Amino acid sequence: MLEPEGRRRVVIEGVSPAIDGGRFPIKRVCGEEVIVEADAFCDGHDALGCVLRYRHQGAVGWDEVPMESLGNDRWRGVFTVSHIGVYHYTIMGWADRFTSWCRGLAKKVEAGQNVGIDLLIGAELVQHASMRASGAAAQQLRAWTAMLQDDRRALEERVDVALDEALRAVMQDHPDRALATTYSPELTVVVDRQKARFSAWYEMFPRSCAPFPGQHGTFKDCEARLPYVAAMGFDVVYLPPIHPIGATHRKGRNNATVASPDDPGSPWGIGSPQGGHKAIHPQLGTPEDFRRFLAKAREYGIDIALDIAFQCSPDHPYVSQHPEWFRQRPDGTVQYAENPPKQYQDIYPLEFETDHWQALWEELKSVVVFWVEQGVRIFRVDNPHTKPFRFWEWLIREVKQVYPDVLFLAEAFTRPKVMYNLAKRGFTQSYTYFAWRNSKEEIIGYFTSLTHTEVREFFRPNLWPNTPDILTEYLQLGGRPAFMTRLVLAATLGASYGIYGPAFELCENHPREPGSEEYLNSEKYEIKEWDIARPDSLKDFIARVNRIRRENPALHRDWCLRFHAVSNDQLLCYSKHAEDHGEAILVVVNLDPHHTQSGWVELSAEALDVPREGHYQVHDLLSDSRYLWHGPRNFVELNPSVVPAHIFRVRRRVRTERDFEYYL
Amino acid sequence: MLEPEGRRRVVIEGVSPAIDGGRFPIKRVCGEEVIVEADAFCDGHDALGCVLRYRHQGAVGWDEVPMESLGNDRWRGVFTVSHIGVYHYTIMGWADRFTSWCRGLAKKVEAGQNVGIDLLIGAELVQHASMRASGAAAQQLRAWTAMLQDDRRALEERVDVALDEALRAVMQDHPDRALATTYSPELTVVVDRQKARFSAWYEMFPRSCAPFPGQHGTFKDCEARLPYVAAMGFDVVYLPPIHPIGATHRKGRNNATVASPDDPGSPWGIGSPQGGHKAIHPQLGTPEDFRRFLAKAREYGIDIALDIAFQCSPDHPYVSQHPEWFRQRPDGTVQYAENPPKQYQDIYPLEFETDHWQALWEELKSVVVFWVEQGVRIFRVDNPHTKPFRFWEWLIREVKQVYPDVLFLAEAFTRPKVMYNLAKRGFTQSYTYFAWRNSKEEIIGYFTSLTHTEVREFFRPNLWPNTPDILTEYLQLGGRPAFMTRLVLAATLGASYGIYGPAFELCENHPREPGSEEYLNSEKYEIKEWDIARPDSLKDFIARVNRIRRENPALHRDWCLRFHAVSNDQLLCYSKHAEDHGEAILVVVNLDPHHTQSGWVELSAEALDVPREGHYQVHDLLSDSRYLWHGPRNFVELNPSVVPAHIFRVRRRVRTERDFEYYL
Repeated sequence: MLEPEGRRRVVIEGVSPAIDGGRFPIKRVCGEEVIVEADAFCDGHDALGCVLRYRHQGAVGWDEVPMESLGNDRWRGVFTVSHIGVYHYTIMGWADRFTSWCRGLAKKVEAGQNVGIDLLIGAELVQHASMRASGAAAQQLRAWTAMLQDDRRALEERVDVALDEALRAVMQDHPDRALATTYSPELTVVVDRQKARFSAWYEMFPRSCAPFPGQHGTFKDCEARLPYVAAMGFDVVYLPPIHPIGATHRKGRNNATVASPDDPGSPWGIGSPQGGHKAIHPQLGTPEDFRRFLAKAREYGIDIALDIAFQCSPDHPYVSQHPEWFRQRPDGTVQYAENPPKQYQDIYPLEFETDHWQALWEELKSVVVFWVEQGVRIFRVDNPHTKPFRFWEWLIREVKQVYPDVLFLAEAFTRPKVMYNLAKRGFTQSYTYFAWRNSKEEIIGYFTSLTHTEVREFFRPNLWPNTPDILTEYLQLGGRPAFMTRLVLAATLGASYGIYGPAFELCENHPREPGSEEYLNSEKYEIKEWDIARPDSLKDFIARVNRIRRENPALHRDWCLRFHAVSNDQLLCYSKHAEDHGEAILVVVNLDPHHTQSGWVELSAEALDVPREGHYQVHDLLSDSRYLWHGPRNFVELNPSVVPAHIFRVRRRVRTERDFEYYL
Repeated sequence: MLEPEGRRRVVIEGVSPAIDGGRFPIKRVCGEEVIVEADAFCDGHDALGCVLRYRHQGAVGWDEVPMESLGNDRWRGVFTVSHIGVYHYTIMGWADRFTSWCRGLAKKVEAGQNVGIDLLIGAELVQHASMRASGAAAQQLRAWTAMLQDDRRALEERVDVALDEALRAVMQDHPDRALATTYSPELTVVVDRQKARFSAWYEMFPRSCAPFPGQHGTFKDCEARLPYVAAMGFDVVYLPPIHPIGATHRKGRNNATVASPDDPGSPWGIGSPQGGHKAIHPQLGTPEDFRRFLAKAREYGIDIALDIAFQCSPDHPYVSQHPEWFRQRPDGTVQYAENPPKQYQDIYPLEFETDHWQALWEELKSVVVFWVEQGVRIFRVDNPHTKPFRFWEWLIREVKQVYPDVLFLAEAFTRPKVMYNLAKRGFTQSYTYFAWRNSKEEIIGYFTSLTHTEVREFFRPNLWPNTPDILTEYLQLGGRPAFMTRLVLAATLGASYGIYGPAFELCENHPREPGSEEYLNSEKYEIKEWDIARPDSLKDFIARVNRIRRENPALHRDWCLRFHAVSNDQLLCYSKHAEDHGEAILVVVNLDPHHTQSGWVELSAEALDVPREGHYQVHDLLSDSRYLWHGPRNFVELNPSVVPAHIFRVRRRVRTERDFEYYL
């Protein structure tokens, strides 16, 4: 059996980026570049033509840009994505006989060989190109053909025609691609809006937003809380589930197995006779109140993110209407959630292995679409790693096909390959291990793996120093400085980060019991009254950090993160720069919340273009102090009880008399 | 549109080995292991079942072995290939509900929970397994089902049944794979005979084998030369092309453009009125002589390797019979080979872009098959990188499908990605850059990349210190010690190596001109008279090295190569060990052909299991001297004018009185 395409001589391989050989898309936001590299080569000595082709899903044909040879058979091309949605890209290569011929001709002429026949060979190539061209170009190519063939002209003159840049340019525009190789499979980019890459999240429980103690908060109260959140500079407000809460096996305060009659229950115990995943808990308000809240938030530039927790309380309407979506036990009861020996009788997981999985998938999709149609554009997905990977891939693709501006955050705190696979399947952003990375070595190792390996192509980290489930020992023991340190780290290591408030800004740090990472009197099981006006609140500090983030494009990106050496293991130093090695931000953090630490920073010249000799200014945007630094090595000292961090803007060039108007 | 297989919950990715995602096969020889690793995981907390499946191309169904969990969602399985030809392998994974259930049950029992319902759930799983089983197993499973369900029995007793190893074993044999995931694409191994991995090649020109000066050598003379070659220990004799040589534009001595009437021409100028690629140059003998020579060689365990040079002299019958297989020039002549400004008027390349490429491919395949049918089983392919990659992939696959014992050596000295791609397409062995890797740093870097990266899965190096085209400066300038050094390096760094003789063993080292790597009076253009009995010949040294190779399995493999530190940059030290950390060979080479060099070897304990304290014996198989070494650090000194290398067999255990029969 003979290969159908035996004459396609160019080989294209080793293409990057390509996740799992192109099985999964890479991710970008509008305006970002996709830098594509590939190995491309051909048998023999022929020159190669090589282009990068790309198109938005909606476009009819390909756009293309030439790829540049990097040597060692490696080629590079770049395109910019300008619209949200899906782009495809691929590479096309062909043996470029005209270029090969030009090179050979030049060498033969230099060696003094007779090139009469060669000129006729070239003429044939030009003539063939003229047949691929039209209009003026075709005419021009025919004229060149005649000149190359014209043996009444001097050879030198015909050689000049052959090697003329003008001919070369027109020939480049009409390459012979009849035997070109196109890389397969087509590769894919999912392009999101800016918030996919750069976002500051604030998680709050609507029911704790009431102005008066003992009251159940409402969406109206949430509206009243918006100015407070906006003043801190957050642009995503994430709400735990807002649906009716089940009563059967409801958990009491501090996760008690039996609830008292006045316990509100966990918002994640979704579903009651009042409705399921498409309904709103009546005490929060009406659908109209919710839409009003969404609209108000939009005025502040804030997206409301809803929680998608695909699980049911025993009282969820699905349980009676769709028993086929749950696993039945031999005694006729429904299988509740378990992680033996732990039992969660208040939660019925959905049975994704049901024969009726297709109806189940469709229903769950309709839940997301329902909220999208209410105006929600961001979802935080609860425990996605306990539902099938293929399900998420399908659901996210289906939703984004119609609503490409919808974003999904994966709340999976599990093994790394599982987290990465969820991201590959389509989650826009992902929770990380950040909460548990506290030492310098841990932070450098983890963030290098996130920002300087292939992982960055599909996994967008969203850094949370705390969540309602996670109060780390560092925060429990480090007091207010620990909260400041972790806030600065989250907000500057990550272009996207979030806090669970007001617990965070009020430095709430009491664990349920020693050794536990759960909050004492967790807001998951009760309504809290937060004194957000408390004078020791970190709200102004947070507002300042978020303003610094907004104003400095270097902090809108993750890939530019570079760590620098410091002579003290309690001090962490890193920089980020804006595109094209633009303005740089340099952060120094004291990781020790208890003691002043000092040391010598040694800036990597490769990462941060500061003068090797001579002075430059670093401007601490937190304290508004300015320092004159010299060369790569400079002294820093940070007292955590004042501010445990510097966030410097680096002015790499200091004006001198040479800049003065009359100097020259 | 809903995924058809939405319930297959297990994800399998990151499979290794898999060349370019499985696009190309890996390579093994009979008896070798294939160690397969993969990431496999499932949503939720279910245990995973994971097997490696493999089959020979001829087998009907899959064999399988369980994969073992390595932690971090990584799994490993191993199979051994026992027949030449093509094997396929893949991985199957499924959520193993029975194992999950057992684990949960044990934890619940430990926590003192009531497990009555759980036992019934387990009973269902066992019952379902009984339906998948047959015979005694089915009966046994039905009995277990009844016991698990039997509520007249004590719970403890039923739990004991549930957690019994016997039940577990039968359940393992009848897993529920209805929703299993099978990795796609199927991966491939090409399995060759032993010579693919371990071979010693000797290149010689048949026409220079005549016993009397001035005579043209014949196959009969080659036969007479066999004892000499066999005594040196070579097991492949490679002959330059044996076909009729063209007269038109024939090259003269030292590559002269014009040949004298008595110049024999280059064997690579293939084709004359006497025939083309399927014919034998009449002066060498008849087809019968050739077959006789093959048979004689076989008696010595020697394979005769033919040269496949797909190019034609202007006198080749193809030129007149198939003008469509050549590129025509505008003046009606055929395009000869060029690498401007160099011109090779004596060579017409085949035009693979011809419209008649399919007929051309078939004809070229028929050339290989023709010689295979004469009994040839190894081919050295000349300049494969000047013919399309797809062509080779097709040709090699087609030939090996019928004759899986045929081996192909790629003679491509070109850019690394091109060489690697040819190997991926199917070449059994490949020439390397060995000839130009002379310093310690170069050798360590190059051989680490060949033996400790993915490259080793598809690229089998064959190391040549010289060829008729390559007389390196190292050999030109280093005298006899340089030849000894390069021989030892080639023969011990590489499980496969070769020399071009008798030029090599006679230390022929005159370049055509200073700065050239071509031989003066190259055998390519004239018949040579070699005095193989010369007393300074290296033949006995070579025989000793080849015997050491044969007798020590450590030298039959490449992947086990490990370098060790030496305190002198002119000394190179490395080891190889037999399978399962068996017997080790340790080589120390003086890279300086002019001076005695000495230094301290520091053996890596990780690579070579020698006592950290205490003595052991190293036995130099070249000189038959024995040394008592102590710990990892030992002194060596090598005088190149005596022998520039040690090849030690390491006796890691030295007998003591404890081994004496009456000691205990």
